[in-house]
Amino acid sequence: MTVEADIFADGHDALLAVLLYRKDGASNWTEIPMQPLVNDRWRGTFEVDEVGDYYYALQAWVDRFESWRRAFAKKVEAGQEAALDLLAGAELVEEAAKNAVGEDSKSLIRFAATLRGDKPAAIRSGLDDALAELMEKYSDRRWAVNYGKELRVNVERAKARFSAWYELFPRSFASTPGAHGTLRDCIDRLPYVAGMGFDVLYLPPIHPIGNSFRKGKNNTLAASADDVGSPWAIGAKEGGHKAIHPQLGSLADFKRLIAEAKKFDIEIALDIAFQCTPDHPYVTEHPEWFRKRPDGSIQYAENPPKKYQDIYPLDFQCENWQELWNELKSIIVFWCDQGVRIFRTDNPHTKAFPFWEWVIGEVKRDYPDALFLAEAFTRPKVMYRLAKLGFSQSYTYFAWRNTKSELTQYFTELTQTEISDFFRANLWPNTPDILTEYLQFGGRPAFMTRLVLAAMLGASYGIYGPVFELCENVAREPGSEEYLNSEKYEIKRWDLEKPGSLREFIARVNRIRRENRALQGDRSLRFYPVDNPEILCFGKRTEDLSNIIVVAVNLDPHHTQSGWVELPSEELGLDPQQTFQVHDLLTDARYLWHGKRNYVQLDPDSEPAQIFRVRPRIRREQDFDYFM
Amino acid sequence: MTVEADIFADGHDALLAVLLYRKDGASNWTEIPMQPLVNDRWRGTFEVDEVGDYYYALQAWVDRFESWRRAFAKKVEAGQEAALDLLAGAELVEEAAKNAVGEDSKSLIRFAATLRGDKPAAIRSGLDDALAELMEKYSDRRWAVNYGKELRVNVERAKARFSAWYELFPRSFASTPGAHGTLRDCIDRLPYVAGMGFDVLYLPPIHPIGNSFRKGKNNTLAASADDVGSPWAIGAKEGGHKAIHPQLGSLADFKRLIAEAKKFDIEIALDIAFQCTPDHPYVTEHPEWFRKRPDGSIQYAENPPKKYQDIYPLDFQCENWQELWNELKSIIVFWCDQGVRIFRTDNPHTKAFPFWEWVIGEVKRDYPDALFLAEAFTRPKVMYRLAKLGFSQSYTYFAWRNTKSELTQYFTELTQTEISDFFRANLWPNTPDILTEYLQFGGRPAFMTRLVLAAMLGASYGIYGPVFELCENVAREPGSEEYLNSEKYEIKRWDLEKPGSLREFIARVNRIRRENRALQGDRSLRFYPVDNPEILCFGKRTEDLSNIIVVAVNLDPHHTQSGWVELPSEELGLDPQQTFQVHDLLTDARYLWHGKRNYVQLDPDSEPAQIFRVRPRIRREQDFDYFM
Repeated sequence: MTVEADIFADGHDALLAVLLYRKDGASNWTEIPMQPLVNDRWRGTFEVDEVGDYYYALQAWVDRFESWRRAFAKKVEAGQEAALDLLAGAELVEEAAKNAVGEDSKSLIRFAATLRGDKPAAIRSGLDDALAELMEKYSDRRWAVNYGKELRVNVERAKARFSAWYELFPRSFASTPGAHGTLRDCIDRLPYVAGMGFDVLYLPPIHPIGNSFRKGKNNTLAASADDVGSPWAIGAKEGGHKAIHPQLGSLADFKRLIAEAKKFDIEIALDIAFQCTPDHPYVTEHPEWFRKRPDGSIQYAENPPKKYQDIYPLDFQCENWQELWNELKSIIVFWCDQGVRIFRTDNPHTKAFPFWEWVIGEVKRDYPDALFLAEAFTRPKVMYRLAKLGFSQSYTYFAWRNTKSELTQYFTELTQTEISDFFRANLWPNTPDILTEYLQFGGRPAFMTRLVLAAMLGASYGIYGPVFELCENVAREPGSEEYLNSEKYEIKRWDLEKPGSLREFIARVNRIRRENRALQGDRSLRFYPVDNPEILCFGKRTEDLSNIIVVAVNLDPHHTQSGWVELPSEELGLDPQQTFQVHDLLTDARYLWHGKRNYVQLDPDSEPAQIFRVRPRIRREQDFDYFM
Repeated sequence: MTVEADIFADGHDALLAVLLYRKDGASNWTEIPMQPLVNDRWRGTFEVDEVGDYYYALQAWVDRFESWRRAFAKKVEAGQEAALDLLAGAELVEEAAKNAVGEDSKSLIRFAATLRGDKPAAIRSGLDDALAELMEKYSDRRWAVNYGKELRVNVERAKARFSAWYELFPRSFASTPGAHGTLRDCIDRLPYVAGMGFDVLYLPPIHPIGNSFRKGKNNTLAASADDVGSPWAIGAKEGGHKAIHPQLGSLADFKRLIAEAKKFDIEIALDIAFQCTPDHPYVTEHPEWFRKRPDGSIQYAENPPKKYQDIYPLDFQCENWQELWNELKSIIVFWCDQGVRIFRTDNPHTKAFPFWEWVIGEVKRDYPDALFLAEAFTRPKVMYRLAKLGFSQSYTYFAWRNTKSELTQYFTELTQTEISDFFRANLWPNTPDILTEYLQFGGRPAFMTRLVLAAMLGASYGIYGPVFELCENVAREPGSEEYLNSEKYEIKRWDLEKPGSLREFIARVNRIRRENRALQGDRSLRFYPVDNPEILCFGKRTEDLSNIIVVAVNLDPHHTQSGWVELPSEELGLDPQQTFQVHDLLTDARYLWHGKRNYVQLDPDSEPAQIFRVRPRIRREQDFDYFM
């Protein structure tokens, strides 16, 4: 954790500054000396090695001894009389000696005596680094200034930064055709998901689905008797948010799923959708948690003229709000107790901000490794606010950023501004609600392009499958982003072995992410110029430049595009005069590049993107023993 | 005063927000409704019509009635059943009626009754703007949120923003050759200064000058008996900071100078140089206000290896600091009592920050129209800090910014970043300490160029004369920025009628400043592209575009330069298809320009700069009655 501050005082005295930090709960501060950079800017760094909150603070003061020493050294250098200066120095040292103990005290007293003694020895002592070091240790902080605030940094585990999500509807994976898939079937699909390299398996709500006003296929108002309903319509006579839909299986099955997934290094993420159907037990047990209409009936969700009579929103500001909030917290805690640590939160922006801040803090106190992904498709400032309230990750506008300028502008904002201090993007090219026009009309190359963009621009990304790898792209109607025959409202059957599946391609991309540390964070993202608006080129790198990845993507899914990309040699530690190798990790092809501008050509049908690892040239003729 | 804020809440409710403000000392806040812009940004504006501090604050809350009204309107539009909505609306109106009084209360009760009555009338009432207006007035603020801080804006009189300074040493203006000039002589020079159009006449310290360690001509250590010393060596047996140097005249003379200057719309600015010579009365009366050396003697100023034995710095942190600070305040107040309202403050960065914050606040409480110019030639962050502490204006790095890129970068920083919220630049091409190389080697054109740059880039600027208008440019030695035979150490005699004086040119430039409101502030400054690095082009404009000034300056004092300048037509309200007139206010020449790019040519010997007033074309053929 690197902290910088502008630190200065009136006059020309030397200053000292320290960065103080402590883990939340610890009573003692640890002190780190800060170093001046340029233009009155100072920097200090401390290590955070546990998840949770750390607090930090700043203190600075005038260093009287160093101020004295600088002036004294200049006088000595100029051969000026400095007898009085030596006495002034001795006074400072004697004052410090009073606060020192043991050897330090004795040392300081000896130094003071020398400063008051014979000139040549006194001068040598005045300039002695050992004295300066001791004097810094006992520097007088009576007039030290503290920065007005104690600041907080929240540390989460690495998965908050680097994760690959896969979303599936378990009910579509029955082993017998026509049956309702179960959590056990889901266990059977783990090798498939792991084979593609995902490490988070996200399940839409697994709770009992309401019957009242149940939606039929394609979100129609009238459901027929065999319609299964939307998993987000939570609550039925079988239970609410702590229950499991009977057709999916038992709690034991769920815990087995978690355990089996762990063997594949996969974590199960659950959906937190705090809303109820009219059949939810809360409706009869706690009608006071819902808003009432003037006739005493419970208010269903509305976005006039649209009505959602199958959904009752909870009233976070109801009279018994504390009871309600505690119950909602107990839902998250319940699933934590079953072993879940990752929660995808449905529409958090429509619930009370203070609730999220409170509940995330509460849950993390007992489960500090809990992570929360905000499904906040809302205005940017609301999205960012949720991140500040405690969400670990957030959905973004990625799905609708398709052109070079859109992508460059948006991801520069997310990674290069203060937003990167509190907001972590999780990029989804599709979701059960979002089948973008780019995917609808771009064919298989569009899916490959969007996969590479999501996985490379975002250290965290996810896809909703298997529709994604199977390149399903038929919308319900022109202009709609809804899937035709959406899995949200019916059980689907997927042919995972279908030719053209992107399964292998995705597996390769995820392996590249795991093997290249540069791709496991977003702050190093930089865009590079290309003289073709259809080719986007960007790079990520580790701080030590030991891992440098450059990605070139053809944004045009219909035509081969080519162009000259311009890499910033100095920034990447490349000698602009030397040849270097770029290794396409997708095809294993290797190219020798030279200078700043190099050529790329991308055919959407064969390889719409290249993911290069940049390798400085290892050997040339001068490197041979016998050269010269 | 325009205030913007990001204001948003969870959910989709309508919001209301107000900006509150009050003059310092007033107990009541005035409320201004804020208006939403885009992207959750809101704006409110209030008028500041008195000098002094204003406080402002923000409050926002959910507007339940407007939220209801929006949803209701959509349902009505969609022809949906809205009986329950009408009842919900009636409840809101009845609740508001309880808090209303008089006619408002009656009105609200009537509205509520209508809402509960017959459908068509009820619907009309629900959408009635009069009801919405009343409901906004009695909007429920029980859960309103206040911005965490009360903010302050300090208002100074217009001269803090727009001023033209002239510095002169009165002792050089004796009517009889060889004599010591007086304040009365200075009165005789007022027509000369006013003739050039300056409105602040700044005098270096006018106090008794010390004898101990007095500096001789050209800053030599040994002064001869007739050397007059530096005015900044303040204090002698005749008195200190509240006394006037006997050879300059009496306090009565000084007050007459102020009164006479006023007739020319000139204010006298005094120098606040808080330092003492060894002969200053404070040294004997208050030795405790100075630092001591280990031998008990008073510490003189040092910047090792340089010594300034003629100067004793005051110790702002001495034991009796409160007594010292009060005495220093009494000096400023003394001169305020004589009628002075503008103070140029010598080296404020070497004195304690808290002292300035305190003393400026104290003085302005009784003299709210007092202005302080900081002579802070120090690091940028210290310079900016002084502005935040209360200084009205500051010297800048202008003297050393000569190239196009230097000027563009520096003045963009000063005027287009948050610095412009607290820092007002005062641009000086020269001072008694600063004769830049550009002036030394650029001849008369360099003086004209720097004058135009100072007067046009800065709404406040100043020159040290008459050396400036006489183009004196001989430095003490190569590499030095000191004047040869500097007026700081001797009495000079100036031939104000010398051929080549810039007096008329300066008068014209100052008249242009007075007649063009665009030049009386710095925030509208914008630089425009020119395809020649030696030509700088920039503009200023009033907000309503009724006054637009464009300046083109040849930075090369040796050669004629030409180039194509590119004006941003839209920003300046110009139709890029139409011809417009640019009127050179320096020569009165008028040119017709067309489109975005237009040609300028500047000969340093005749006209190194052009100051255009841009005038949209007034008439063309279509404007005639008989056209068509």
